[in-house]
Amino acid sequence: MTERQLHLNAFLMGVGHHEAAWRHPRTDPKALDDVAHFQNLAQIAERGTFDSVFLADGVQIWGDVRHTAAGRFEPLTLLTALSQVTDHIGLIATASTGFSEPYNLARLFSSLDHISGGRAGWNIVTTAQDRSAQNFNREKNTEHGERYQRADEFLDVVTALWDSWEDDALIVDQDSGVFADETKVHEIGHKGRFFSVRGPLNAVRSPQGHPLLVQAGSSEDGKAFAARWAEAVFTAQQTHEEAVAFYRDLKGRVVAAGRSTDSLKVLPGIVPVLGGTEREAAALADELTSLIIPERAVRQLTDMIGVDLTGHPLDAPLPELPPVTDINGAKSRFELVRDLAVRERLTLRQLLGRLGGGRGHQVVAGTPEQIADHIELWFRSGAADGFNVMAPLLPSGLEEFVDHVVPLLRARGLFRTEYTGRTLRDHYGLARPVSRYAVG
Amino acid sequence: MTERQLHLNAFLMGVGHHEAAWRHPRTDPKALDDVAHFQNLAQIAERGTFDSVFLADGVQIWGDVRHTAAGRFEPLTLLTALSQVTDHIGLIATASTGFSEPYNLARLFSSLDHISGGRAGWNIVTTAQDRSAQNFNREKNTEHGERYQRADEFLDVVTALWDSWEDDALIVDQDSGVFADETKVHEIGHKGRFFSVRGPLNAVRSPQGHPLLVQAGSSEDGKAFAARWAEAVFTAQQTHEEAVAFYRDLKGRVVAAGRSTDSLKVLPGIVPVLGGTEREAAALADELTSLIIPERAVRQLTDMIGVDLTGHPLDAPLPELPPVTDINGAKSRFELVRDLAVRERLTLRQLLGRLGGGRGHQVVAGTPEQIADHIELWFRSGAADGFNVMAPLLPSGLEEFVDHVVPLLRARGLFRTEYTGRTLRDHYGLARPVSRYAVG
Repeated sequence: MTERQLHLNAFLMGVGHHEAAWRHPRTDPKALDDVAHFQNLAQIAERGTFDSVFLADGVQIWGDVRHTAAGRFEPLTLLTALSQVTDHIGLIATASTGFSEPYNLARLFSSLDHISGGRAGWNIVTTAQDRSAQNFNREKNTEHGERYQRADEFLDVVTALWDSWEDDALIVDQDSGVFADETKVHEIGHKGRFFSVRGPLNAVRSPQGHPLLVQAGSSEDGKAFAARWAEAVFTAQQTHEEAVAFYRDLKGRVVAAGRSTDSLKVLPGIVPVLGGTEREAAALADELTSLIIPERAVRQLTDMIGVDLTGHPLDAPLPELPPVTDINGAKSRFELVRDLAVRERLTLRQLLGRLGGGRGHQVVAGTPEQIADHIELWFRSGAADGFNVMAPLLPSGLEEFVDHVVPLLRARGLFRTEYTGRTLRDHYGLARPVSRYAVG
Repeated sequence: MTERQLHLNAFLMGVGHHEAAWRHPRTDPKALDDVAHFQNLAQIAERGTFDSVFLADGVQIWGDVRHTAAGRFEPLTLLTALSQVTDHIGLIATASTGFSEPYNLARLFSSLDHISGGRAGWNIVTTAQDRSAQNFNREKNTEHGERYQRADEFLDVVTALWDSWEDDALIVDQDSGVFADETKVHEIGHKGRFFSVRGPLNAVRSPQGHPLLVQAGSSEDGKAFAARWAEAVFTAQQTHEEAVAFYRDLKGRVVAAGRSTDSLKVLPGIVPVLGGTEREAAALADELTSLIIPERAVRQLTDMIGVDLTGHPLDAPLPELPPVTDINGAKSRFELVRDLAVRERLTLRQLLGRLGGGRGHQVVAGTPEQIADHIELWFRSGAADGFNVMAPLLPSGLEEFVDHVVPLLRARGLFRTEYTGRTLRDHYGLARPVSRYAVG
């Protein structure tokens, strides 16, 4: 199998990605409290030979408490529970470089990688919101560029800690009592602007060497960071044209950074609203939009783009927005929302409907054939290496995708019919990093 | 069952608590890499109707890398894996107030409590070592009293976050789209010396309300902290007399703090070296001692008491030790070691042998009857509410305890024959806390 293959990640979110998913008769809000629900989702995705599942996260309350489905589970612990009922699928969790210590995060991801036999991935976020900073001793968050500088140094430290035990450091000779070759266990001696970390990590090197590094920021700083560190990028792209431009830009930066073009996989988000016919799919999309509560959606949009839109008339166009240079939040998401509203001349209410399905990710309503066509087009035309699949309703939307779209992708030779590797890196076709201390 | 009942915790550590356990023919060092080994231990303990299992932790490399069995797993993730193969047993993890943020730790323990259906416990440590601080941007650790002041405020924040969603905050009405009653979701607005945390937590209240709070420090600061916060205390006591004095002291402090005497359970550590006969037990103890590598043991002792003993002649008595007021490490462990060496006039080598089994915890070698007698005596005479069982070899030592000691304790009416509750709090006979925000 030398032909280029598609990669699929199942982005798991409660009972669905649509913001009103929990209100739809096809979901059961009780599932939000049930580990078995999430285990079932991972097993469905594994049945579909997805590369990975992904759990997003934050360190604050989001949106409007009254109307938002509240969570219970923290991703690293929940993924550990999912690892116990699956054998192959990768397990990716968001964690923030802004509000953790590198030693602690290195340890948690190493542990998940050990427990899962090499299936851990880390979606690296810097966390934009002041509201998050207020849970960590600060009134305001730090500035966008500064957050990425901290993230860069954070990654230097974490990857050094993951390397601090060489792969062959263990000897384990019961007779002599020698457990490890101490010359292959390294202090990292990091002293930088943000962190001083002596090391080594108190855990031996994990199956993947480094858990997979995933990233999602698409600002200038975010793309520069991705070019250095990311091995998979989740991105929100509303049009094919923008997606191609983003893909080219990012791959160019990866090559400029001295990496191979294949060492980073680009996965735009897609919200597949599936129906047996186009009409059924459109009806489901309308039904979901009708369940949106505008007051809640405005709060979420305000959190997302960092501009307060509460109180703005729903049926008027958006107000004049500040220049992106004034935005200290998620800059790329701000631009995406602004461009969408301007391009399609949307009122606030219309914009909320467009964003309700995937918070800025592309919503594609149609039959399984139409969804497969869309995926194939983007994959073959340099817009994507794969997709971040965000089912609007869970588990039903993921089941339909696995049962009706995946077989089409397989029949077209685009997607694996069975797993050929054991680790998350294997699935994405990415090399296992050699410890920096083992070189030379 | 109104009679006072014994509590048993299984302290899990690699392939055994004896420092040379991995060298003994009855263990398999490969098990250190195997989640199934730890799951088996939890299932053995659950077959023995233990209250809980416990995983210790630190944030640095311990002792002598060459001769020390190295770990892989972080406790919260590993306990999550254990939760998936057990139904009743409690799951307690160490985490440090010194090197984490309260929002992150509150979230992790809440998540484990949700995933396990109310079985999470947190062994609160402040972390003494400079070597740990050096992994977190500091050359030296902060002073003993200061560490406990931070721990106190840390607990104020964490428990407030756990309370921030009242139990009846969720409404989940699909028709109206109301998910939660926002008047029952609270910002905590904490502004203190160490932390400023707005809240609420981004997770609904967990099954136990508060995961069980466990503590192990026995210094003055440690006991004062325990009296305020702890619901179970793991403690190292070498003699019955000292154990009774500690028990009385701590229970007195608990009552003085306005709590009921039963609201805190005292569990001394016991390393049961079991044999079918006294002679077999003694032979196993000798065999284990013979596997100790003095160079490694001296490094561990140095780390443990915070006094450098490397290079001291093995067959001489200990050197003059500094006064405890000069010790910034684990003060109570320093005093225990000093008193043991003085009381029994031990050479350094002899001391290492005495500490090798349980790092200062009491080692009791004997038949199942003798171990059960010891437990019963301490339990009935005001020295203990239960025991922290530290098998020298794993799984064999825990299996023997469950198969041969537990039946004796049950036959004597001291210990449950089956679980009567569902949560860790149920097992320890501790009330579920009401949210502070629900009062009044």
